[in-house]
Amino acid sequence: MKNITFENIDITGGFWKTKQDMVKDTTLFAVYDRFCETYRFDALNCNWTEKDGEECKPHIFWDSDTAKWIEGASYILSKQRDEKIEKIIDDAVDKIVENADENGYFNSHFLTQRPEAKFTIRDAHELYCLGHLIEAAIAYKNATGKDKLLCAMCRYADYVDKVFRVEKSAGFTTPGHPELELALVKLYEATGNRRYLDLASFFIDNHGCSDKSLEKKVTRFVPMYNMDDMPLRQRTTIDGHSVRALYLLSGAADVAKHTNDAELLEMCRRLFDNCTKRRMYITGGVGSTYLGESFTSDFHLPARKAYTETCAAIALVLFARRMQALDKDSKYADIAEKVIYNGFLSGISLDGKSFFYENPLEIDPDFNYIYNATVEKERFPAILRQQIFSCSCCPPNIVRFIPSIADGMYSLDGDTLYVHQFMESRGSFDGVTAVQTTNYPCDGNVKITVSGCKKAAIRIPSWCKSFTVSLPYVMEKGYAVVDCTEGEASIDICFDMPVVLMRAHNRVHDVSGRAAVMRGPVVYCLEGVDNGADLRNICLDRKGEFTLGDSEFLLPSIMAQGTRDVETDELYSVYDGEKQQCSLKFIPYYAFANRGISEMLVWVQ
Amino acid sequence: MKNITFENIDITGGFWKTKQDMVKDTTLFAVYDRFCETYRFDALNCNWTEKDGEECKPHIFWDSDTAKWIEGASYILSKQRDEKIEKIIDDAVDKIVENADENGYFNSHFLTQRPEAKFTIRDAHELYCLGHLIEAAIAYKNATGKDKLLCAMCRYADYVDKVFRVEKSAGFTTPGHPELELALVKLYEATGNRRYLDLASFFIDNHGCSDKSLEKKVTRFVPMYNMDDMPLRQRTTIDGHSVRALYLLSGAADVAKHTNDAELLEMCRRLFDNCTKRRMYITGGVGSTYLGESFTSDFHLPARKAYTETCAAIALVLFARRMQALDKDSKYADIAEKVIYNGFLSGISLDGKSFFYENPLEIDPDFNYIYNATVEKERFPAILRQQIFSCSCCPPNIVRFIPSIADGMYSLDGDTLYVHQFMESRGSFDGVTAVQTTNYPCDGNVKITVSGCKKAAIRIPSWCKSFTVSLPYVMEKGYAVVDCTEGEASIDICFDMPVVLMRAHNRVHDVSGRAAVMRGPVVYCLEGVDNGADLRNICLDRKGEFTLGDSEFLLPSIMAQGTRDVETDELYSVYDGEKQQCSLKFIPYYAFANRGISEMLVWVQ
Repeated sequence: MKNITFENIDITGGFWKTKQDMVKDTTLFAVYDRFCETYRFDALNCNWTEKDGEECKPHIFWDSDTAKWIEGASYILSKQRDEKIEKIIDDAVDKIVENADENGYFNSHFLTQRPEAKFTIRDAHELYCLGHLIEAAIAYKNATGKDKLLCAMCRYADYVDKVFRVEKSAGFTTPGHPELELALVKLYEATGNRRYLDLASFFIDNHGCSDKSLEKKVTRFVPMYNMDDMPLRQRTTIDGHSVRALYLLSGAADVAKHTNDAELLEMCRRLFDNCTKRRMYITGGVGSTYLGESFTSDFHLPARKAYTETCAAIALVLFARRMQALDKDSKYADIAEKVIYNGFLSGISLDGKSFFYENPLEIDPDFNYIYNATVEKERFPAILRQQIFSCSCCPPNIVRFIPSIADGMYSLDGDTLYVHQFMESRGSFDGVTAVQTTNYPCDGNVKITVSGCKKAAIRIPSWCKSFTVSLPYVMEKGYAVVDCTEGEASIDICFDMPVVLMRAHNRVHDVSGRAAVMRGPVVYCLEGVDNGADLRNICLDRKGEFTLGDSEFLLPSIMAQGTRDVETDELYSVYDGEKQQCSLKFIPYYAFANRGISEMLVWVQ
Repeated sequence: MKNITFENIDITGGFWKTKQDMVKDTTLFAVYDRFCETYRFDALNCNWTEKDGEECKPHIFWDSDTAKWIEGASYILSKQRDEKIEKIIDDAVDKIVENADENGYFNSHFLTQRPEAKFTIRDAHELYCLGHLIEAAIAYKNATGKDKLLCAMCRYADYVDKVFRVEKSAGFTTPGHPELELALVKLYEATGNRRYLDLASFFIDNHGCSDKSLEKKVTRFVPMYNMDDMPLRQRTTIDGHSVRALYLLSGAADVAKHTNDAELLEMCRRLFDNCTKRRMYITGGVGSTYLGESFTSDFHLPARKAYTETCAAIALVLFARRMQALDKDSKYADIAEKVIYNGFLSGISLDGKSFFYENPLEIDPDFNYIYNATVEKERFPAILRQQIFSCSCCPPNIVRFIPSIADGMYSLDGDTLYVHQFMESRGSFDGVTAVQTTNYPCDGNVKITVSGCKKAAIRIPSWCKSFTVSLPYVMEKGYAVVDCTEGEASIDICFDMPVVLMRAHNRVHDVSGRAAVMRGPVVYCLEGVDNGADLRNICLDRKGEFTLGDSEFLLPSIMAQGTRDVETDELYSVYDGEKQQCSLKFIPYYAFANRGISEMLVWVQ
């Protein structure tokens, strides 16, 4: 089954049009300006010397930041060319090509600071940066037809193939930070050159197999940090750095698709399930600890200390989109949907200018950093979004993700059109047209008009317990399959979208006795600015009435009733069960922390 | 009002007799053996050299460990002389006296490793060790009449007075780890030499006033760590290292008593209230973080990460006993009682051989140290007691505390006898005799027979909402005052002791929606070994019946009914409110972790 890319689909209105316009009009330039201020574009000149100082010294991952920005800008250009943006990119491309070495190698950190150390330090992000540059090159070529960067990156990739696969002369065997694997498959798909697929397979095959004792140690991490503790095919759990793990698995799924590698696919299935059924927050965020930005163990999902990096949310969607095309099971698109409306979208402010790297499920600002006796402090996630980070991977990842949000909305399986996501849109591809008219997820009504296919398989979201489809259908692995053999078909679907309370598995001890409020795919939260202090003390009346309120944040707020323990002055007193009523206002989780510092809580008593 | 010391009171049966016998028969020798194995007694020889190796190299606080053991042994000797124990102590005393320098200075660390650095490093525990040696010397003299150590310590204290107060020639002004202050007042009381009180006053007056920039910096701590950030008299909150803070305040209360310093007393009152009304666990434990072993901020009382050092529990009792004599308010003895039955007593195993340094209110062993990607791990309190620690302050502190548990059971205020604590005992002092017959806290019945006083003021514990007293009484600040003018009086008190559920203040976010089970002064907990896994998921039926069960751990267990969420395999599912009934067994908190590794929980839904 083939996923349809966003280039073939225009988001024409509704929720995601608002977000795409924001990124096009605001975020793209906000991130660009911050990157210019912090010398990331200057770094491409590769002329930094010690006398220029530390501030503008190219860091090992700066090229990936620039590359992701170029990729995102290209996605916007693919819908509407823009001379000013192209000038920025053309200049950047010129510098990259000009400063690449005689082999095509380019890395602004190594070229300026330690050219002798090229390909000797596994964890130094060279291949990760290359992966993002390849994705940028393909995107820019697709958007504009300009292939200067793509040619340069093919040359660089050829050199990597020679050094790593043919000569085996590098100081390590596989990328320390995966990403190149999936980029190489994309490059194979873009060029038809099988070498790139073979190199991706080589990296996947060797992941976790090479002799780590031969590698230079530069980090405080253990082998599991990179899922290096065993051959990838043997894994049963997803571990270590969450972004690395999910980029690697996305690459593995790509390789499995092209090589029909059943063992590799089975591993991808196992780890997707372990990730989403045992180690994922209800927001779709993953990564339970800042220590190594990592997965920890099944059911360990602390809300307030959640790491849940925005990039990890994106990476989980990338993995899920690949799996949905391989497995035709709605669970993958269910997860992608959960992530994009919650753990991903919280990563960007409502004005499009600032970002969360971490997306916790609880904020209790009065009790952060109150350790008054020592220089060290306990660590907590940030409580307000920032415009840029020293490690600023998330903002440009958002810049490339939202413009391509329609990626994987559809798949084609022969003459069956799979409809995975619901967004007001118009798509046209491979002789098929698909038009969606909907306010989803404001409400659950979706009209889909399709032509050019014989069947339409429409995902029935797992959150939806009651729905109607206007044409006869049969259910297949979570999809309502409708016959469209009479040319054009117009299908009205109505997903019943009540407010529901969700519980977690008994072993998620952090949220025992607590429930999360959801409506459709959207997780809600309480904020102190609406509900006063001591949110953890609030007990939601689960049998009370839930009503929809204002739509200050695009989707309706939810009004509910609850109680709080009566105020006491005593630190401890006899529990008499006395409560006071309170009215509660829940807002979409993605909108938290847009009104200053405030308590925030997803899991309510 | 004068507190009566334990020397005048014999514990004749009941709860504390069991504990005193255990310490006398087991703990005293268990701690001694561990100290011998770890060279702590050898250190007194002061002949360590580099070639002897690191293992037996005297540490800066080793002398305090030995001193506390001698003090505890002396308390046991005061009830029953023992040649074997006295031989150990006499040998130790000989070494101390022999190896003291020409000024009387003794410290096995500085004498062997850096004699030139004496009194130059504030945080190096020299004066702390001296404080404990003074307390040991007084105790041994009181128990045996032997005053060799006392004479030596007077000489050492005289030297400290000369260096610190008269000449001001030391490298710092006040003790880094307080303890000496209260020991000096004890020395003043034992010798009548006013110099020691003046020196104690000097240290209290200067605490937080001296110019820290002149001191050698040796730690990662900030001034608040030692409550050095402002003059002690100005404080409004108790901060920093919890043991240091409470030893310092005990010394300040002593000085306030002898100097009638109203301002100092008022500060003691403020900080006692801040400590016990805002920063204390329901077990009486204090110290909310391992970072600096410190207090943090009001209402920050995380159960699972509680530091709540056993020594801090002891220090809080020492402070409370002093305050009860100054203020005649039952709140002080209430706190002392809360601590001795809970946060203190959990520090020692039921067999008397192993110890907790930290006493958390929740243990979730399956989710500790599961951080698989990095060398660093999140820190948790130990989940099993140990026989000794590298910093082994708590075990010998227990050795001195339990034999002197009757300290402060009574006070005399003119011809009024204050009865603060209830233990089966016989006391005789200042022409007064007081006999208690009771199983307290197994039940709430206490018979007190007194003679030689005109009034008896009997504490009505704050946990007790219903009681009877067999003679007419008037209430005064929490005490039921009974007239005993007719010579001997026999008073029967019956404290109603039902099982009650306690709640915390709304701002104690860590336990929102949860309650603690208490009976009398005793806090109870659930353990996994009795109640299965996922204790946090259990919801106690607060309106159900509570019955008393077996007394495996001296006091009855409590049987109750509850529910748990039905088991699911799904990580997240719609909350339908479905529960399954379960029977619950609560045991006294102090008895947790005596049956292997297990979940433990005080605060139950």
